[in-house]
Amino acid sequence: MSWMRNAWYVGATSDEVGDKPLGRRLLGVRMAFFRDGEGRVQAVEDFCPHRGAALSLGRVCKGELVCGYHGLVMGGDGVTRSMPGQRVSAFPRIQRYAVEERYGFIWVWAGEADQADPATIPVLEWHNNPAWAHGGGLFHIKADYRLMIDNLMDLTHETYVHSTSIGQEEIDETPCKTTREGATVVTSRFMENIEAPPFWLDALRAIGVEGNPKVDRWQICRFSPPSHVLIEVGVALAGHGGYDAPDDKKVYSVVTDFITPEVDGSMWYFWGMARRFRPDDAELTERIRAGQGGIFTEDLEVLERQQQNLDAFAQRKLLKLNIDAGGVQARRMIEEHIARETASV
Amino acid sequence: MSWMRNAWYVGATSDEVGDKPLGRRLLGVRMAFFRDGEGRVQAVEDFCPHRGAALSLGRVCKGELVCGYHGLVMGGDGVTRSMPGQRVSAFPRIQRYAVEERYGFIWVWAGEADQADPATIPVLEWHNNPAWAHGGGLFHIKADYRLMIDNLMDLTHETYVHSTSIGQEEIDETPCKTTREGATVVTSRFMENIEAPPFWLDALRAIGVEGNPKVDRWQICRFSPPSHVLIEVGVALAGHGGYDAPDDKKVYSVVTDFITPEVDGSMWYFWGMARRFRPDDAELTERIRAGQGGIFTEDLEVLERQQQNLDAFAQRKLLKLNIDAGGVQARRMIEEHIARETASV
Amino acid sequence: MSWMRNAWYVGATSDEVGDKPLGRRLLGVRMAFFRDGEGRVQAVEDFCPHRGAALSLGRVCKGELVCGYHGLVMGGDGVTRSMPGQRVSAFPRIQRYAVEERYGFIWVWAGEADQADPATIPVLEWHNNPAWAHGGGLFHIKADYRLMIDNLMDLTHETYVHSTSIGQEEIDETPCKTTREGATVVTSRFMENIEAPPFWLDALRAIGVEGNPKVDRWQICRFSPPSHVLIEVGVALAGHGGYDAPDDKKVYSVVTDFITPEVDGSMWYFWGMARRFRPDDAELTERIRAGQGGIFTEDLEVLERQQQNLDAFAQRKLLKLNIDAGGVQARRMIEEHIARETASV
Repeated sequence: MSWMRNAWYVGATSDEVGDKPLGRRLLGVRMAFFRDGEGRVQAVEDFCPHRGAALSLGRVCKGELVCGYHGLVMGGDGVTRSMPGQRVSAFPRIQRYAVEERYGFIWVWAGEADQADPATIPVLEWHNNPAWAHGGGLFHIKADYRLMIDNLMDLTHETYVHSTSIGQEEIDETPCKTTREGATVVTSRFMENIEAPPFWLDALRAIGVEGNPKVDRWQICRFSPPSHVLIEVGVALAGHGGYDAPDDKKVYSVVTDFITPEVDGSMWYFWGMARRFRPDDAELTERIRAGQGGIFTEDLEVLERQQQNLDAFAQRKLLKLNIDAGGVQARRMIEEHIARETASV
Repeated sequence: MSWMRNAWYVGATSDEVGDKPLGRRLLGVRMAFFRDGEGRVQAVEDFCPHRGAALSLGRVCKGELVCGYHGLVMGGDGVTRSMPGQRVSAFPRIQRYAVEERYGFIWVWAGEADQADPATIPVLEWHNNPAWAHGGGLFHIKADYRLMIDNLMDLTHETYVHSTSIGQEEIDETPCKTTREGATVVTSRFMENIEAPPFWLDALRAIGVEGNPKVDRWQICRFSPPSHVLIEVGVALAGHGGYDAPDDKKVYSVVTDFITPEVDGSMWYFWGMARRFRPDDAELTERIRAGQGGIFTEDLEVLERQQQNLDAFAQRKLLKLNIDAGGVQARRMIEEHIARETASV
Repeated sequence: MSWMRNAWYVGATSDEVGDKPLGRRLLGVRMAFFRDGEGRVQAVEDFCPHRGAALSLGRVCKGELVCGYHGLVMGGDGVTRSMPGQRVSAFPRIQRYAVEERYGFIWVWAGEADQADPATIPVLEWHNNPAWAHGGGLFHIKADYRLMIDNLMDLTHETYVHSTSIGQEEIDETPCKTTREGATVVTSRFMENIEAPPFWLDALRAIGVEGNPKVDRWQICRFSPPSHVLIEVGVALAGHGGYDAPDDKKVYSVVTDFITPEVDGSMWYFWGMARRFRPDDAELTERIRAGQGGIFTEDLEVLERQQQNLDAFAQRKLLKLNIDAGGVQARRMIEEHIARETASV
């Protein structure tokens, strides 16, 4: 297994699971998501125990999943409730998955459902917080999920992949620092008295800054298992305290990245940005979302071609430079968890 | 082999083989169909013995198939007739397939051509019969052909898959009866004094019935080897004798299903409906054909996803309920035939 | 290996490698092409030694290839020049490929770069020659490159595949002659006093010939290793000396075919035509190019289907007729070269 099992992954956004079921392959398994009678999201194998039909093609009726082929009624616990004209008590149970809805996401526990502890879901303070606005999207990418972690834990690539929006040479020129803080790997970079790249200049305009003033810029990438990367990013007018500058002198956001393996070699990538400036400006939220979507599409091609190369040159060793330390340490942390899981079986 | 060899399958419709050859993969083999000098359809391997070109990319000239690459002339018996500037007597023979054109279909014998007996092609009484009208179409489906037999021999799925057209809850609530009658498996269901679903209400309107009267409804599914399913369906105004009601009190059709394996895991599905009401109404024929095409497209997705699930969970046992008896017995009949064919080799 | 290694293949046209790098899979390898500081084309593995990204997704800066992911700077010799904030002296070298730009093409040496001798690139006399005009294009075809050599060394297929443009029955009726002349296989056919097919009638019109006069026609196909086929084609007004007729009585061209394996079972096909009549007529060049593109598209489907058939019937032997002698001898010559290369290792 190339991913942790005793962990929560984002499987869907809340609005993807409405009146209809959602079928999605996650963590190597085809799952069917639906809402039960209390509106709680449930997840079971997307496999009807009658004839193997995909349950997600059916419909939800009174909080249970009705197979679209012959009407078998499946509960969120994997137990068949009923089927027209049949006694179902001996029907085999199908796998259910522990799920938890928080912060606009459906979180899925990759391991045994009875070991799932919702307390270990990360706290996302911006959700439903009037001081913040959040927008984002979902990409399916044909690359190992860890290539995305590498990507996000080393933002020097912004200079090259995103040269027209958030990239700038000073990122390359400023060393980054990688540390392990408990269960988190942190890579940070602080740049002082530099030009603001187009994305941030646009953000400064949104809070009323005019002209093209010099800024202090920061990027603090935090990886936490199994595959979440939250990145504090922002700029402040130069000389006002940088990261600690007062709110009217800075624009500050958190890039949110939840990465879920689909099968080996492909992933679902839930990306977004939570910002703490002009939270009520819905038009700005949409503009940032569209811009971020464009930027992350640039990463997508780079990662898919990288995966093809790694498949073709499977025996070749890659370099691990200091800029790669974030990804390297994140991978090491994942491997340690997997090793512990394997040992405890 | 997962299908019977000593049997006729539908390979094409008559109008698919006109002035030009038709190339189609059927029963595991790429075949080239064309019409000879008398207009009789012939079928040979789609493989030119000269350099392996696809004969079906060529043209028909004087009743023989002319390879589109270098002009080799192939007869319907698999023997090369001529080639510009060449003596062809020593050219290797290619496989020919026994074919027979009847009822608007090209029937192909899956086994040795010299064992093909056209007398065993089923009789389709509606063809060229002024009391009947027939319309239909062809789907390519990425699923084992037996999944379609299961589907057609258990119409309880109509309640779910086709809920807006021919489905209704009474199908589920009324038990079906499955019997083996000689070389046929029959699953029948009779429902009395029920609402007419939209498709049948529309049909009643076509014979002048007004309002929304209660009806008696029947479904009699007949499987015969290797993979034909003919389904008598209809409704009569309630209390006039049901299936035996006089013609002005009922609408009656036969759903025609000829299913031909392409390779393991995919099929060609020739679907249609022959009806015995308002046979001269060409506009009605087209309307029914379009509606049926839409209904069967709903099955298509269900079956392809079912096949994906069965491939992914290959070791899992499926349930065999009483509603599945038709498909189960049809599969058993196919297996018995295959076992006899294997034993007699 | 199914192709010669100690040989030059056409990898791209000159105009495909401009300010941006070009990524292309050739001869089993993903290559990145770019122009160095002197405008000379360089080719290296399309694999960044840092993290395996595709170098061809990057950009060219000061004559070196800058990886689009993290800014590693790669030289045309496969040695990393620099990378922001890194010492690169110990970075592993990547493979470079010998390339040479001539006649509007980028030629790639398939073997060890230090054995490449540009003197063995064929001389194409028409290039930048005011007496000639050349136009052409590139196709990607999913078929073994030798199927294209077979195709071009036996023009009897024109009668069938290209019946509306250059094909005519006299090609079939006139025997061809195949000889081996040193390192070249030559198949030639001369037809006298025949109708001009549409393509050539159009060409005669272009030099002022009116009406529909009888012509002498010739086709002289020359294969030279590893996979080049140059075909002298033309027609002269009948009775003026045929191939040797004076220029105002004939239209004369060379069909240019450079064929490069991509991987086993697929190829890049650089096709074109150099003509010696009305060389200044750019509109005619474009019209011929468009027409030839259409003609060669007809071959494309034939060859891809032939490849599918050969894969499906891998055990079946093909015929080798006298019309196939050109392809058979060309393949033999290729095999002899490969055998020598293997023996000398």
